[in-house]
Amino acid sequence: MVVKINENYLKLKSSYLFVEVARREAEFTKANPDADVIKMGIGDVTKPLVPAVIDAFRKAVDEMADGETFMGYGPEQGYDFLAEAIIKNDYNKYGVDLDTSEVFISDGAKCDTGNIQEIFGIDNKIAVTDPVYTVYVDTNVMAGRTGEMGDDGMYEGLTYLKCNAENGFIPELPSEPVDIIYLCYPNNPTGTTLTKDQLKVFVEYARENKAIILFDAAYEVFINEDDVPHSIYEIEGAKEVAIEFRSFSKTAGFTGTRCAYTVVPKELKGYDSEGNEVEINPLWNRRQTTKFNGASYPVQRAAEATYSPEGRKQILEVVDYYMANAKIIRESLTDIGLEVYGGVSSPYIWVKTPNDMDSWDFFDVLLNEANVIGTPGSGFGPSGEGYLRLTAFNTLENTKEAMDRISKLEF
Amino acid sequence: MVVKINENYLKLKSSYLFVEVARREAEFTKANPDADVIKMGIGDVTKPLVPAVIDAFRKAVDEMADGETFMGYGPEQGYDFLAEAIIKNDYNKYGVDLDTSEVFISDGAKCDTGNIQEIFGIDNKIAVTDPVYTVYVDTNVMAGRTGEMGDDGMYEGLTYLKCNAENGFIPELPSEPVDIIYLCYPNNPTGTTLTKDQLKVFVEYARENKAIILFDAAYEVFINEDDVPHSIYEIEGAKEVAIEFRSFSKTAGFTGTRCAYTVVPKELKGYDSEGNEVEINPLWNRRQTTKFNGASYPVQRAAEATYSPEGRKQILEVVDYYMANAKIIRESLTDIGLEVYGGVSSPYIWVKTPNDMDSWDFFDVLLNEANVIGTPGSGFGPSGEGYLRLTAFNTLENTKEAMDRISKLEF
Repeated sequence: MVVKINENYLKLKSSYLFVEVARREAEFTKANPDADVIKMGIGDVTKPLVPAVIDAFRKAVDEMADGETFMGYGPEQGYDFLAEAIIKNDYNKYGVDLDTSEVFISDGAKCDTGNIQEIFGIDNKIAVTDPVYTVYVDTNVMAGRTGEMGDDGMYEGLTYLKCNAENGFIPELPSEPVDIIYLCYPNNPTGTTLTKDQLKVFVEYARENKAIILFDAAYEVFINEDDVPHSIYEIEGAKEVAIEFRSFSKTAGFTGTRCAYTVVPKELKGYDSEGNEVEINPLWNRRQTTKFNGASYPVQRAAEATYSPEGRKQILEVVDYYMANAKIIRESLTDIGLEVYGGVSSPYIWVKTPNDMDSWDFFDVLLNEANVIGTPGSGFGPSGEGYLRLTAFNTLENTKEAMDRISKLEF
Repeated sequence: MVVKINENYLKLKSSYLFVEVARREAEFTKANPDADVIKMGIGDVTKPLVPAVIDAFRKAVDEMADGETFMGYGPEQGYDFLAEAIIKNDYNKYGVDLDTSEVFISDGAKCDTGNIQEIFGIDNKIAVTDPVYTVYVDTNVMAGRTGEMGDDGMYEGLTYLKCNAENGFIPELPSEPVDIIYLCYPNNPTGTTLTKDQLKVFVEYARENKAIILFDAAYEVFINEDDVPHSIYEIEGAKEVAIEFRSFSKTAGFTGTRCAYTVVPKELKGYDSEGNEVEINPLWNRRQTTKFNGASYPVQRAAEATYSPEGRKQILEVVDYYMANAKIIRESLTDIGLEVYGGVSSPYIWVKTPNDMDSWDFFDVLLNEANVIGTPGSGFGPSGEGYLRLTAFNTLENTKEAMDRISKLEF
């Protein structure tokens, strides 16, 4: 007997993407110490928390200073005050009813989308879009639901749903049966969306095939198109087949503050090995109560403030600021003849590389010649090759400056 | 194909302990609406955050309000400012050197002790003490490392190391080989400790058997005995065989604020199926960077303040307050002829039930006749039967009142 590691971890390719981006940036900065490098790579926000959120956050910290108002352990699922605000503002508004027991507040959508697979069996067949937010893939590799990565950059046993300019970034239904489908819309990394009718196709598929959709809507607040659903539950019957993930990270600048939530409807069912229906909500409740101890109380109060009339107004102003950047990026790049996608209902702009350049070559051109950092699309999966992601999260000034510099390049 | 649940979850007994405690309390309160019930059950703190912590927390919230000082995504492993304070104050002070890359800051020790098993293979043989903090057991059940629970209250395939008055609460080494041993000292729930020599026996066992010790030291701040180690790394060679978990929850009242950390030394090794050594630190790093996004920035600043001279003085005053309660509980119960354990280097007092009463019967006597709520020892495992846990986390006034009431009972 010796202690054995989880060997599935050895199948993971090192998280080379952002590490390699950072390495090339560091190398460039060392060689060009005076260069003014503009970062449009990692999807982190730059604007501070809005005043209404800060006020609520401060007030809650003050509560923690007084024995009469001090808050110890809270519910692992989060406080009802926040769950109720979420239901009222993020769901009722779109005609969706939920009970507070269906809303699980957490410290991040990365955690939730990473942990959710634990409550499902190892033998489920998983589908992801390609390109993809790598957490969906890596967490399934770690759990043992895949084989090794092949030379094509795909893990054996995973189903990849290709999304590129040729299919308008609309994934086709899996050609082989799958049990769990990860969808992220508005999409990270491509910035594209699905209309209600396009998403409905997946809901129907899941209903017919007794599959489950893990729907990541972390970028919901950026939706600007009328036919794009804000929640998958706007589609009839979706509660029976979908879990939805949301976050305050991009909505309200909580990337360093940490708050998110996951909706697991009571109607949602899975199956045991004998084919009996099993409710999914109690499984996630059990997972969270066993391995999580609730999000920080002052943080939950800060999140609640994003739903006050003042808070809402303030966070939407920040969203508008970023979306104005997105527009500038889209228009500037289109003007110089580049093909761009996304950036309408998303802070991400997905740029086709000129002249069939590969993603890393285009990254190097932008870094070396315009001192602008993007993220090579190939880092998000094989179908991301030939694209590069830019984010609208920088300042207006930097965004304009970056576009000016790129516009002067010759491709 | 249909979506399959993780059937290991079905092996879990519902978390009946605190639910049943709450049910009996509610029933009693309904029947006796005027009764002044004193809660000494759940291990939650009651004193507010100390002023130095509040100041740092407020200051960090203010930083989040300004674009110049705003903090977005931080390192998943936590900020160096906190890791450095941890190393200096919690380790160097006891002669232990660590690198910041060996300290992983998180939102809770429950999360870390629950998640750590993911990086190990499913086929490891696990040992826990009995009674035990149930998270260690349940997370291994959920992962599939056990069979069903037997009539004896023990899961098939798990090794239970009995701890009761007969062996002085010193677990014996496993009689069959094990790969991973969970130890929690000062112990939850018994409040007992291991001396350096007693803990050394386990370190030697792990070294000889290529096993790993998961050492939960969440109650370290309460240690009052000179021969009790503050860290397992005070024992020579322990870095090669032990992971240590710490928390700010009980140390500084962070139960609702959320901050903890886990130490994974670079020297620690596991093995792949071919017997090759594999470093454990990069595996945990990979787990955390893939499934976690760092603890809240203001919370990390608040935690850092517990190490300032003023912060330290203030939190130790709170610890002294609780430990004065523990002394009152120990002495009051001893005076009326009850056998009590723990409460010297721990906020938990483990009371032997009088007249071989079972745990729940004694719970009912205390609730009905003294209106005091404890936690039945049997809820922590079969060897907890015949004991009841009381905590020192209530106010001095309530603690005295509870002891007065219990002292008037006749057993």
